Amino acid sequence: MAVRKASGAVKRRKIRVDLGDRSYPIQIGSGTLDEAGPAIAKATGASQVVIVTVPEVGKRYAARLTRSLKSAGLKVHRVVVPDGDSTKNLRELARLYDAFLEFGLDRSSAVVALGGGVVGDLAGFAAASYLRGIGFVQVPTTILSMVDASIGGKTAVNLKQGKNLVGAFYQPSLVWIDIATLRSLPARQRAAGMAEVIKAGAIWDARLFSKLEKNMKAALSLDPVALVPILQRACAIKAQIVSQDEREAGVRILLNFGHTLAHAVEKKLGYRKVLHGEAVAMGMVFAAKRSEELGFAPDGTRERLENLINLAGLPMALPCFPRRAYLSGLQVDKKKTDKHIRFVVLHKIGKADTVRLTPEEIYPA
Amino acid sequence: MAVRKASGAVKRRKIRVDLGDRSYPIQIGSGTLDEAGPAIAKATGASQVVIVTVPEVGKRYAARLTRSLKSAGLKVHRVVVPDGDSTKNLRELARLYDAFLEFGLDRSSAVVALGGGVVGDLAGFAAASYLRGIGFVQVPTTILSMVDASIGGKTAVNLKQGKNLVGAFYQPSLVWIDIATLRSLPARQRAAGMAEVIKAGAIWDARLFSKLEKNMKAALSLDPVALVPILQRACAIKAQIVSQDEREAGVRILLNFGHTLAHAVEKKLGYRKVLHGEAVAMGMVFAAKRSEELGFAPDGTRERLENLINLAGLPMALPCFPRRAYLSGLQVDKKKTDKHIRFVVLHKIGKADTVRLTPEEIYPA
Repeated sequence: MAVRKASGAVKRRKIRVDLGDRSYPIQIGSGTLDEAGPAIAKATGASQVVIVTVPEVGKRYAARLTRSLKSAGLKVHRVVVPDGDSTKNLRELARLYDAFLEFGLDRSSAVVALGGGVVGDLAGFAAASYLRGIGFVQVPTTILSMVDASIGGKTAVNLKQGKNLVGAFYQPSLVWIDIATLRSLPARQRAAGMAEVIKAGAIWDARLFSKLEKNMKAALSLDPVALVPILQRACAIKAQIVSQDEREAGVRILLNFGHTLAHAVEKKLGYRKVLHGEAVAMGMVFAAKRSEELGFAPDGTRERLENLINLAGLPMALPCFPRRAYLSGLQVDKKKTDKHIRFVVLHKIGKADTVRLTPEEIYPA
Repeated sequence: MAVRKASGAVKRRKIRVDLGDRSYPIQIGSGTLDEAGPAIAKATGASQVVIVTVPEVGKRYAARLTRSLKSAGLKVHRVVVPDGDSTKNLRELARLYDAFLEFGLDRSSAVVALGGGVVGDLAGFAAASYLRGIGFVQVPTTILSMVDASIGGKTAVNLKQGKNLVGAFYQPSLVWIDIATLRSLPARQRAAGMAEVIKAGAIWDARLFSKLEKNMKAALSLDPVALVPILQRACAIKAQIVSQDEREAGVRILLNFGHTLAHAVEKKLGYRKVLHGEAVAMGMVFAAKRSEELGFAPDGTRERLENLINLAGLPMALPCFPRRAYLSGLQVDKKKTDKHIRFVVLHKIGKADTVRLTPEEIYPA
């Protein structure tokens, strides 16, 4: 049970991502941003840091984070990058390197990513590659980046040919989550982030799934008593999967549940029209339906998933493109090494597996 | 003793770089380029590879390497980048990504760096970052890259502000050394590469140092019976040091012997006028002199080092810049985290240590 402090903050909870000498903690709480500084100083051992953020998030939270970092004796710099996925490019990356050099960041410095997945991916790859790797901390401010992007060490930028084509597996030394920073997140973004939480329950943990069925509304309204334990569990699942398979050679592929079709939808609709979580929601419903049709999951699996996705206010049906559009979208799946795709199916709520299918089998006529 | 095969090639020798699940072998031989293909196929598990090389080296060796790779069933692409250190930049890196995408390289593909340190650093960082890391093999064709750059996983590109400011620690899955490829290397480059071999003996192995005193001329003329065991031992030393300290937190700093002043010389003279190995040779003589003066090494240490460096045809004396030029060159040492520099001194031939000195103490008036 979440314990309330006098300040109204839910007591911090800690999850450990277990990766040998690259292990690190995730700290989740509500109203904990002002305590981040000393924790970041301790986790990185840095004497100076740069906060990389986007305009809106920076305006709301950078000053508080800076104050907290300074109280821990750190020298603090700040870089604001434009918002939006198109910021994740080689040009912005080069601008970050220039800024880091101008600030005089050395191997004992650290990068603090304050924002969503875009900032985490871009700043993370900059931290991974500047001087062959300096300290890195994630302070995610979206549900999506809290439960997904900030855990697992995937950093990347896009090329004009596609998304996330250049990057590194680079673990942060700390992930600091304050759910109070979600207050400024639009409802649509909160719901989209919840898609990855639903995914975690669907593929790995029937209890989390049930908890979401009971507490979705309270969680979306950012009630810490509902949301902190849910995010804690979602982070723990991601952390557990990543620990077992840091480089995506095995079980980590289960995290692709719903993503095969989601990528096709995003490609077809354009990344601006549909949020990643929305595309994943559609893709999960589709994958659950196929899981039933192919005889992997019992009847009713899709319906339960659909109901929860609906409760979160997420879209359920794939856009009505011609079949050939989906087939061509599936052809370019980056993970595919031959004609088959490792498609993630459900056996039941809480248990997933992969099956090798051709695009035509995934999306039959 | 080196065993000659009927072909005249010295039997291959293998060194293992021990880095847990990132361990890999170095294979050294003479006339072994035509056998590289099957070994690369086995080490990487790749179905297609791209050879990254420079014009002169590519003209001489790429066709043979391609034939050998094709004989192992691999699909082979080739990219030729301009020669010279200025090639190691973000623009050439982006060109490599574009080429990799055009070839359709996926996560089961590999990059083969055929050339010296520039190619290894640039292609290595491209391999480290493309799709967050694909297969990587080094086929070094200079002494310097054989014993130094190809071992240890340091990859990097330069920024306009300085050298090697962006990169990754990324281990290859194989280093394939054919000393016959050194035949086309100018004598000056051979000697410069030998500076790092001398360094390995000076800091780590008095026996290697003695062997160099006896066989330097034969080694520089590429006699396999002399050169293969020498390179084998130099590689083994580098491998051993890297194994103990992959991320440069400890003993690996000893490899900086001679480099503190070398960097200052390179910066002052410009990278085109002095070869890295030449600058290192001067820096080592200086460091040995300071080791004696500071009472770390017995008299005669500098003289023995000087004689060997002279035997290799390398320069011994630092260029006569004003002291303030050296002091300012020392200020920008990238490894420095405070006013002190960890300066590598010799205790005797075969044994080194670090001492914290200010630039003024390193280069007294």
